[in-house]
Amino acid sequence: MNWVLIMAGGAGTRFWPASRLERPKQVLKVNSSKPLIRETVDRVLSVVPKNRILVLTQKRQFSAIKKALPGIPSKNFIIEPVGRNTAPALGLGALTAFRRDPQAVVACLPSDQIIRDKNKFVKVLRTGIETAKAGTVHVTFGIPPRSPETGFGYIERGAAAGKKSGIPVFNVKRFVEKPDFKTAQKYVKSGRFFWNAGIFVWNAKFLISELKKYQPEIYGKLQKIRNEKDLRKIYPSIAAISIDYAVMEKAKNVRVIPGDFGWSDIGSWSAFETIWKKDPAKNAVRGKVVTVDSTGNIVDGDSKLVALVGVRDLVVVSTEDAILVSRKDKVQDVRKVIDILRKQKQEKYL
Amino acid sequence: MNWVLIMAGGAGTRFWPASRLERPKQVLKVNSSKPLIRETVDRVLSVVPKNRILVLTQKRQFSAIKKALPGIPSKNFIIEPVGRNTAPALGLGALTAFRRDPQAVVACLPSDQIIRDKNKFVKVLRTGIETAKAGTVHVTFGIPPRSPETGFGYIERGAAAGKKSGIPVFNVKRFVEKPDFKTAQKYVKSGRFFWNAGIFVWNAKFLISELKKYQPEIYGKLQKIRNEKDLRKIYPSIAAISIDYAVMEKAKNVRVIPGDFGWSDIGSWSAFETIWKKDPAKNAVRGKVVTVDSTGNIVDGDSKLVALVGVRDLVVVSTEDAILVSRKDKVQDVRKVIDILRKQKQEKYL
Repeated sequence: MNWVLIMAGGAGTRFWPASRLERPKQVLKVNSSKPLIRETVDRVLSVVPKNRILVLTQKRQFSAIKKALPGIPSKNFIIEPVGRNTAPALGLGALTAFRRDPQAVVACLPSDQIIRDKNKFVKVLRTGIETAKAGTVHVTFGIPPRSPETGFGYIERGAAAGKKSGIPVFNVKRFVEKPDFKTAQKYVKSGRFFWNAGIFVWNAKFLISELKKYQPEIYGKLQKIRNEKDLRKIYPSIAAISIDYAVMEKAKNVRVIPGDFGWSDIGSWSAFETIWKKDPAKNAVRGKVVTVDSTGNIVDGDSKLVALVGVRDLVVVSTEDAILVSRKDKVQDVRKVIDILRKQKQEKYL
Repeated sequence: MNWVLIMAGGAGTRFWPASRLERPKQVLKVNSSKPLIRETVDRVLSVVPKNRILVLTQKRQFSAIKKALPGIPSKNFIIEPVGRNTAPALGLGALTAFRRDPQAVVACLPSDQIIRDKNKFVKVLRTGIETAKAGTVHVTFGIPPRSPETGFGYIERGAAAGKKSGIPVFNVKRFVEKPDFKTAQKYVKSGRFFWNAGIFVWNAKFLISELKKYQPEIYGKLQKIRNEKDLRKIYPSIAAISIDYAVMEKAKNVRVIPGDFGWSDIGSWSAFETIWKKDPAKNAVRGKVVTVDSTGNIVDGDSKLVALVGVRDLVVVSTEDAILVSRKDKVQDVRKVIDILRKQKQEKYL
């Protein structure tokens, strides 16, 4: 049967101060009145019922995520005792589904993306599930690139591998890591490259057998995990490596399905520039904002009025107990703020 | 006897969002744990008792100011129904003191200044009171300029007019309005110019007679005010002009006493750069602030943590319901924010 595995680990430090250790970015409401992860779940409910949606998360974030997802059974939350990157996490998810349903086909979805065209997404997802069902291929989704982004990995397609429900499926020629700008420009121009959306579909049994083949040690340890106690004991000892590195780059039989469904990765505050409405002075704002001679800013005022005077290209974020004011092109350095707070043991702001 | 008249009108829009219509800058705690106006009162308690301290204020600010000044009798608050600039206000104050004490010598002090050397100030104040007592001269205080400020009026001294308690007193040659930078540089170099601190000492009877001489209309109307009802009725019809223009620039017998007592005018957020401590990166901050590659900023976090990333020369002010982010050299444009809010009828932020 169809299953969905929502990947909701990771603290999302890049969205500080809105995101915190116990309030990861997946539970932020960035695009609507619903948390991102709730949108992710609602988007697939025509494909799988709630009792076949698994959620991978971490201990500190569990409470906020559970609260954001009413109706998902408690036993469907897989709580990693520590983060071990995507290969162990997706392996654990596949194993969990496989033990409940040996025919499980699992669509693995990040919980922090925006997808504007829900209907198109569901169509592509169904095609992905159909393609993966037989249990002989890895299925990935490729986003037709809109610009030469250097922050994403890319997938180069090979030969056509047929169509399902009118949607083309391609072989994957290769995965490439984040390119430099010139290379990204070439990729976009070529028409053969896609952004790697980090979405996968597998027959669970197939993924497990591939893990056994390429990562026998990870496979062996995952197999031993039978309950929460095992999880707490064994999981931390597993190598923290990504599924791309562990399996996808080695596997021969990988497919990519082009998905032009209005996908946006919410990687940092800058992303909101393309998501929120802009005022006439090109400020992307949410909440009550008054601007005087200010342009190109990104402002999230929470419940507060934010007034900007004579400033440009800033990110201003207000929360109940902390405020960030950053140059837009330096906003990734918010990590350094978190480092300082950690050193100062200011736990309440982490 | 000695009296003090505290001038506490004016909304202080330049300190938005910390100052509001009903929370004027005089009640802000900018230099210590006490409101500015409370510091002003405490500074003179060795010279006058609380029952001889009069406070000029306006209706919307009265409640906040009364609360900041415990022990000042209610009848000592003079509540202007509308602001009419300093000539009517100081005349009304002098008249109030004179009616209670025909020998009153009134020191008129702004309520929004910082004075670091309290002992020296009291010494100069006593000299001013002694000088004014006979009722033949206007007494002003001149601050030896530390820099060629273009935001202050200046006083040029004339011949020496004696010493009192070791402190020199000079005749005033002239008052000059805010000069341009080059002129201000000349003033500072000359050694003959002082910043006009807006502090005056008068024998109340003398000021009233001078008003009668130079501003008979204002004098006539003020004389008719005998109670609160008169005040509400007559005061709004009085011409709104400054004491400098109404009297001081016309009077012949004006003295200036140099006062090197660590005076700072709190005219806008920029002033805090010289008042608050600076961190190693030259940010003047108050409250919890974390900075990364940021310099030259002025930050008042209130109770919130403020994180700055890669920004310079900004003013960042947080309050319970509003946040200001402004270029430091544009911070006077905060008035435009208030104009917008007024047009939008966002009364709660005014």
